[in-house]
Amino acid sequence: MNDGANILHSKLKQNGIVKVAGAFDAMSAKLVEINNFDAVWAGSFAISATHALPDASILTMTEFLAVASNMTDACSIPVIADCDTGFGGPSNVSHMVKKYESAGIAAVSIEDKIFPKQNSLLENGNQKLLSEKDFVAKIIAAKNSKTNENFMIIARVEALIAGLGVSEATKRADAYEKAGADAILIHSKKNTPDEIFEFCDTWNGNIPIIAIPTSYPDVTLEELQNHKVKMVIYANQSLRAAHWAMADHLNKLSTSSSLSDVETKMTDMKDIFQLQEMYEIKQQETDIEKNLKKLGYIN
Amino acid sequence: MNDGANILHSKLKQNGIVKVAGAFDAMSAKLVEINNFDAVWAGSFAISATHALPDASILTMTEFLAVASNMTDACSIPVIADCDTGFGGPSNVSHMVKKYESAGIAAVSIEDKIFPKQNSLLENGNQKLLSEKDFVAKIIAAKNSKTNENFMIIARVEALIAGLGVSEATKRADAYEKAGADAILIHSKKNTPDEIFEFCDTWNGNIPIIAIPTSYPDVTLEELQNHKVKMVIYANQSLRAAHWAMADHLNKLSTSSSLSDVETKMTDMKDIFQLQEMYEIKQQETDIEKNLKKLGYIN
Amino acid sequence: MNDGANILHSKLKQNGIVKVAGAFDAMSAKLVEINNFDAVWAGSFAISATHALPDASILTMTEFLAVASNMTDACSIPVIADCDTGFGGPSNVSHMVKKYESAGIAAVSIEDKIFPKQNSLLENGNQKLLSEKDFVAKIIAAKNSKTNENFMIIARVEALIAGLGVSEATKRADAYEKAGADAILIHSKKNTPDEIFEFCDTWNGNIPIIAIPTSYPDVTLEELQNHKVKMVIYANQSLRAAHWAMADHLNKLSTSSSLSDVETKMTDMKDIFQLQEMYEIKQQETDIEKNLKKLGYIN
Amino acid sequence: MNDGANILHSKLKQNGIVKVAGAFDAMSAKLVEINNFDAVWAGSFAISATHALPDASILTMTEFLAVASNMTDACSIPVIADCDTGFGGPSNVSHMVKKYESAGIAAVSIEDKIFPKQNSLLENGNQKLLSEKDFVAKIIAAKNSKTNENFMIIARVEALIAGLGVSEATKRADAYEKAGADAILIHSKKNTPDEIFEFCDTWNGNIPIIAIPTSYPDVTLEELQNHKVKMVIYANQSLRAAHWAMADHLNKLSTSSSLSDVETKMTDMKDIFQLQEMYEIKQQETDIEKNLKKLGYIN
Repeated sequence: MNDGANILHSKLKQNGIVKVAGAFDAMSAKLVEINNFDAVWAGSFAISATHALPDASILTMTEFLAVASNMTDACSIPVIADCDTGFGGPSNVSHMVKKYESAGIAAVSIEDKIFPKQNSLLENGNQKLLSEKDFVAKIIAAKNSKTNENFMIIARVEALIAGLGVSEATKRADAYEKAGADAILIHSKKNTPDEIFEFCDTWNGNIPIIAIPTSYPDVTLEELQNHKVKMVIYANQSLRAAHWAMADHLNKLSTSSSLSDVETKMTDMKDIFQLQEMYEIKQQETDIEKNLKKLGYIN
Repeated sequence: MNDGANILHSKLKQNGIVKVAGAFDAMSAKLVEINNFDAVWAGSFAISATHALPDASILTMTEFLAVASNMTDACSIPVIADCDTGFGGPSNVSHMVKKYESAGIAAVSIEDKIFPKQNSLLENGNQKLLSEKDFVAKIIAAKNSKTNENFMIIARVEALIAGLGVSEATKRADAYEKAGADAILIHSKKNTPDEIFEFCDTWNGNIPIIAIPTSYPDVTLEELQNHKVKMVIYANQSLRAAHWAMADHLNKLSTSSSLSDVETKMTDMKDIFQLQEMYEIKQQETDIEKNLKKLGYIN
Repeated sequence: MNDGANILHSKLKQNGIVKVAGAFDAMSAKLVEINNFDAVWAGSFAISATHALPDASILTMTEFLAVASNMTDACSIPVIADCDTGFGGPSNVSHMVKKYESAGIAAVSIEDKIFPKQNSLLENGNQKLLSEKDFVAKIIAAKNSKTNENFMIIARVEALIAGLGVSEATKRADAYEKAGADAILIHSKKNTPDEIFEFCDTWNGNIPIIAIPTSYPDVTLEELQNHKVKMVIYANQSLRAAHWAMADHLNKLSTSSSLSDVETKMTDMKDIFQLQEMYEIKQQETDIEKNLKKLGYIN
Repeated sequence: MNDGANILHSKLKQNGIVKVAGAFDAMSAKLVEINNFDAVWAGSFAISATHALPDASILTMTEFLAVASNMTDACSIPVIADCDTGFGGPSNVSHMVKKYESAGIAAVSIEDKIFPKQNSLLENGNQKLLSEKDFVAKIIAAKNSKTNENFMIIARVEALIAGLGVSEATKRADAYEKAGADAILIHSKKNTPDEIFEFCDTWNGNIPIIAIPTSYPDVTLEELQNHKVKMVIYANQSLRAAHWAMADHLNKLSTSSSLSDVETKMTDMKDIFQLQEMYEIKQQETDIEKNLKKLGYIN
């Protein structure tokens, strides 16, 4: 059984910032693990993109959960699932928590926008917030539905995204902590971390603060830590790097007369065989043969 | 309804070689389309890799079909599905053809190895072939189960992979054509196209020949055409380019103090929004508003 | 490809009432077909019940669609899918219509309650309606997303369920027809058909009226037809008969000393083999053998 | 987390026969639980039948696992999954064990027929056995892939079904126990239990024996226990009772003028609401309100 929730819980108790990178399928999640990140972020923008569908609550919980489950099956580091607005009201959130926890996911993040939501970084996107009370109801439902204390309910505050300012953000963070959230994810679309820092310096909560510096990429780990950020999520850079590399390769290949003509940096098949445990099957065959020999079926 | 089978059929009637590139999810498939390839190859190695599972008949038909269906939903070019050995015997092949055809897939490829199979390019992999008769039975089952004449049954000959030589390969290609296959995919793991060319020059069949030059990347389109190859599949380069880019980025990011510190070529989020049709949702909203205005609900 | 939408369209053009019975999986759908009903109703109460989950928008579109697709694959009569509130807002409805239509479903029904909804016959259930405008927006989204004119968008009016009276029901039916709905499903939880009849006699629409007489089972087909009802759906009786039979059998079996001790009416396995096309596999084997003989592989 | 494997393990340590009844979805599984059986049998014949597909390895592992997972989510008694031949070779069995165990299933049963298999009770069905050695390899793979010692690998011996007699059956049972099986399921299509009894009386194994008396329904629990049978599975009677009740009801309804005209025994909707936990949602709403009151959001 994947022990993600307990591992993540103890990582957050240690000194230092917890570093998380985004993934969109089991292979990219495995690459996050191989490169020594503390956890995987199963982000809804990236997962929607790989389905060629809008990041707007179009994919269902079933589809998001399938991806996060594949990650959990493949990795031994914790998987944190971006669950958008929780796929509906409190009863949907309750169902969601049961399903994600029993699939071995370490944490779920739900945000205080209205369902169906739109991506937070979409220009002129619809970023209306749910009332504080209605989102608190979702946190209560989530909290009451988990069985392992260490399974994390992350409350994502979208007040800054909605342009409501830091005071609304801290008010909501207070409310969500009181309702039982295990961490606050504070999101911003500004290209500097100023309002994030202001939030962190103002807010008096006792649960970890999480940041996603997509729009303010210059911020350093040291600065984040100095402002009490406990976890940083590099949410979608893997996806965008993969997209760039494929688009560039396919563009060149489309006008080339041979594969060799295109200079693309490419992983050797053997390394991918390694990641997908092709060689484990051969090891397994050897083990079985050893056993069959012992049992007298082969010499 | 996706019209892939008919489009692919008419492409194969035209002069020139049909160019196909591999993909492993809807986004990579969409990139194949955007870059003007004729069709998408939903390859089992690449799809298995993104599930971090061996390319050894471990993923089920349900999982492979889900990926190919997502591609078909996202693309207007044909999707060709790599169906390994057909997921079992003739009755499984029959079921498979019904499911894939009704999902709008254009073609399925089945290979004459024993189920469960191992990747053809795996060093020391198990490459035992099914008897010709048993594979012919699968082709008959496939042929009898399709409803659109243009839905293609591709018979993949693994005789060269199994080290049985060109004469066994042509003998099998003959048998498969006679049994009703719509094309022959001839695969090789040599690093020159010599045995492929020998096969093409020797074989007297009337259905299209398909090649996958992964192991002999220097071959040119012109050479392939000169030897009567009608379709070339660049099966897994997108996957390997994406893997390389992500591994490189995550490796650098893991020791950097900020996102900006890492120099990775990365697609802008707006371009990904474009691909995943985020802006269509805004267009849709505008259309609905226009209608609501017409109906008198808003001014 | 399943031709359900066209078949259903022409049934509705004929004289007489269209008779539909509910099912919850492919076998029960097949029994509806075998017993000469015109179409299958893939009801959300019954499907939720077989998943042992509340009829309260808990199952996702993916799960409902999987069941309806299985039915369509198994049956040649049309399948009408109960899609609750459309799984979210207009963009979810749009996505839903594309998925259901391309899966070969004949019609979708969406109701004007707030998402997440609760079963209409639940005592003291929450039956709040969406604003007329917001539901009209969903119908527009649905209409704009279908490709076959004959694919039906059924608008289910819950005004009577919500206790808002016949005048609100007819007002809404008018609005939904104007917005593009292809039929009106009028639902009631009264134990007589009086308010249904009042609705039918009052409303001046030109699209078919559909009724579900679960709570007023005494109503006759003749009475329904006399009041212009064009389609009757016996939504959940199969489920409840199956539940009763299993509960009774298991209860007796739990205290019996042998299977023979329990007197339960039970279908012979051969009849179920027939339904699930076990004998087709044997037929298929025979066909393949005939072909193999012709090709010289066997004598 | 479902604790099924441990519960089943301790049941088998107690005196008395373990009574198991078959189910095909979460509702029928819940009825098995409500009626005090010790465990649920997720049988492949019944599950295939409800998909209207042959019991011939046509449904994939993904589809069978989805059903068994739904059962596990709904029930607190153990779920035993009928996994046919293990969905391929040893590597497929290994993958299967990991997936089923992590989904909370208590036990898997694999049978020693050739993949794809046909139902054991099909007249003139193909019942060829896998070689003992090849099936032993599957058991080794299964055993090496489980993490909880109590997760059960049931080896189903089909020697009697294949007409090879009791001595072949005991020889295979010996081999499977030695290879690591946790129980032996001995199956017969005779209409008396004689050959089952002969097997039980002859075989000297130390692991539990399991019987499925579909074809010899007169056998009593006492007789089975007297012959050392430790677990009895009533595999498909629920399905057949449900099928009969639905077929009868739909047949009558098809020629009736109203629902009331048909005399069918039917469960009240309230009892099904109860099973599917509709009232839990109302309880949940009350709990949340209590919390919102405490937090000062409502009076």
